[in-house]
Amino acid sequence: MSQAAPNRAAKVIERCRELAGISDVPGETTRLFLSSATRDAHTLLIWWLRQAGLEARTDDAGNLRAVRHSAKADAPTLVLFSHIDTVPNAGAFDGPLGVLIGLAALEELGATPLPFHIELISFAEEEGVRFSFPFLSSLAVTGQLSAELLARTDAAGVSVAQAIRDFGLDPDRIPQSCPLAPNVFAALEVHIEQGPVLESDNASLAVVETIVGQSRLNLTFTGQANHAGTTPMPLRHDALTAAAQWIVEVERYASDHTQLVATVGRIEALPGAMNVVPGTVNVTLDVRHPKDESRHAAVAHLLTKAEAAGALRGVRVKANLLSEQKAVPMDRALTVHLHQAAERTGHDAKPMFSGAGHDAMILAPQVPTTMLFVRSPGGLSHHPEESVREEDVKAALATVVNLLLHLKPHGKR
Amino acid sequence: MSQAAPNRAAKVIERCRELAGISDVPGETTRLFLSSATRDAHTLLIWWLRQAGLEARTDDAGNLRAVRHSAKADAPTLVLFSHIDTVPNAGAFDGPLGVLIGLAALEELGATPLPFHIELISFAEEEGVRFSFPFLSSLAVTGQLSAELLARTDAAGVSVAQAIRDFGLDPDRIPQSCPLAPNVFAALEVHIEQGPVLESDNASLAVVETIVGQSRLNLTFTGQANHAGTTPMPLRHDALTAAAQWIVEVERYASDHTQLVATVGRIEALPGAMNVVPGTVNVTLDVRHPKDESRHAAVAHLLTKAEAAGALRGVRVKANLLSEQKAVPMDRALTVHLHQAAERTGHDAKPMFSGAGHDAMILAPQVPTTMLFVRSPGGLSHHPEESVREEDVKAALATVVNLLLHLKPHGKR
Repeated sequence: MSQAAPNRAAKVIERCRELAGISDVPGETTRLFLSSATRDAHTLLIWWLRQAGLEARTDDAGNLRAVRHSAKADAPTLVLFSHIDTVPNAGAFDGPLGVLIGLAALEELGATPLPFHIELISFAEEEGVRFSFPFLSSLAVTGQLSAELLARTDAAGVSVAQAIRDFGLDPDRIPQSCPLAPNVFAALEVHIEQGPVLESDNASLAVVETIVGQSRLNLTFTGQANHAGTTPMPLRHDALTAAAQWIVEVERYASDHTQLVATVGRIEALPGAMNVVPGTVNVTLDVRHPKDESRHAAVAHLLTKAEAAGALRGVRVKANLLSEQKAVPMDRALTVHLHQAAERTGHDAKPMFSGAGHDAMILAPQVPTTMLFVRSPGGLSHHPEESVREEDVKAALATVVNLLLHLKPHGKR
Repeated sequence: MSQAAPNRAAKVIERCRELAGISDVPGETTRLFLSSATRDAHTLLIWWLRQAGLEARTDDAGNLRAVRHSAKADAPTLVLFSHIDTVPNAGAFDGPLGVLIGLAALEELGATPLPFHIELISFAEEEGVRFSFPFLSSLAVTGQLSAELLARTDAAGVSVAQAIRDFGLDPDRIPQSCPLAPNVFAALEVHIEQGPVLESDNASLAVVETIVGQSRLNLTFTGQANHAGTTPMPLRHDALTAAAQWIVEVERYASDHTQLVATVGRIEALPGAMNVVPGTVNVTLDVRHPKDESRHAAVAHLLTKAEAAGALRGVRVKANLLSEQKAVPMDRALTVHLHQAAERTGHDAKPMFSGAGHDAMILAPQVPTTMLFVRSPGGLSHHPEESVREEDVKAALATVVNLLLHLKPHGKR
């Protein structure tokens, strides 16, 4: 590699891996919100930003932010963002890839004049591990970090507000230091896909058109626990066979409906003895679809099927809605621009929906937002062996730079 | 109730309930092998036996035994038996009912001369709770309590041999004090059904013709854990949907085959997160049938179906046989005599198989053995609310007494 044509994609990957060495748990990559590893990661990021001629600040929610100024002081702002916190024993790319592609894009732009400011935001909390609640950072920059959320405590009983103070910041200053610039006209998150779709399509990139809506439920099947030897089949009220018939129906229905995913991830059969017919079964159901009406129809259908599977066996079914989240569309115009930027750099970015939640979901209702997905080899996510291909990072970086060079601010928020 | 016609059935129930008050755990009925509650139960039983004119002894496996002698010293012996140990938080009748109906039958016989001795054995261990191994008592009286079993330890690390010594007995004397009399010509166990069959047939009694054989297996379904949002249905390798399809097939196959029961009692899905497609599922399979060949055919069929359900989803299946137990037929002639005795007292004792294991299973290969089942209201078993109806206990007692009055010793073992 010559100095004249730096391999920025390789450098992005190298920096992601360097950042992955900064961990709250030695030997793995675990970086929780406002932890000492977060502080060390900030030190490294600040150093890299400074090398690129950018001064960074930490806002009072712990987000590291740097602005590349336009010559016009009153120019609008474009935001490049992703996060640097991780799940426990994570990979190197979920989050950091977007931050470091953003930095590489600014490096690539060099002194090229642009008609807008660019703010690079490295969110400190997206995964929601420490406080069992995701998106605290993006909620802070969109003015939605409520007093209730600030009072939430971690496993050690430390509140969000206290953790902010312990990090040397001031939760009372969040309304001043956190909000997005008032004139943001576009926001872009680059993220690994965290799934197998791009790999199965043999493609590098996708443009996200919608972040799916999600329903989460608990279901309890209640039959009758009985002796497995002395209870003939016709006299049973087996909660597990009822649940099993329903789980097969969940799979069948979702498979028959494009874009729908439905998952039973947890199951518990009680009393849980080898020689006892299960009397109670608890399961979870996670349903996601880019269209809310399709998701609602799926949930309604599946609840009916659960009752039918129970009724065949004298098993009662109770369902409990745990959470519901609407689908969030990305900004249509910005999404078209991103497609065009990918095309201009020779890449066919597939239109796709995101099955996982992202900070983009929190920003989208307030500022025009879109997302660029980068292929996840093996579909691996939240795993130490998570990886990216250099050619895909190169494609993503070229697309982002091309977008920045072509995008015209089209007005205020 | 007049003194002249004592209500022995009511007394049997009263005594079972009195015994149920003797527990290792206050407030419930939990009587483990060679525990202090066992000693207290023996004290009470010895007192009741003495009131009936019988002297009891405790053999070196902890079984309480009393012999009603025939006038002929060299007469053969008939054994009435059941057990007084319980599962944790048990009911009052599983075990004790058989012992106390035996005692009531001896009381009813009074001085009536019979051409055989009758030994009443109250086994100290049938359920297998303390040493995670059932039938230690009946294995002792049939000469099968091996050195390996004597070395087995309980949760506190106490061996069977040490527990015997701690109870004031001598494990080295088991070969002398435990074996059945050499001339046992019949053995009868009365037990609650522990199932709903008699109740659903509106009948008091059943004569057991076979104790079913049993196969126990572990199966592991191994697919691929994936993000529940980002993994489209066609790209999943869901171990739980594969297992669920198979569980439905287990139920269907068993329902279609008379006398077969098959149960999935335990299930574990890993990683067990609401938003992760299960990558691994562990289940147990318990299959029972009175005919060994039907049981083997069922296991073979169900393993094939597990592989088929896995193959549809790219999920591998591994099966592991944990234990296998052949069906044990009861003695045909003795079973006919028991049917006739029931008929003579005006009861239609249904022929049935036992889906649960019993001490009778251990004795049957060595001495002519049969079992009489008494209806379990609600099919309840191993439950504090386990009960019996007085009319059914009356029927059982009348049948046993009638058998004793009519049975002719027909030779030696």
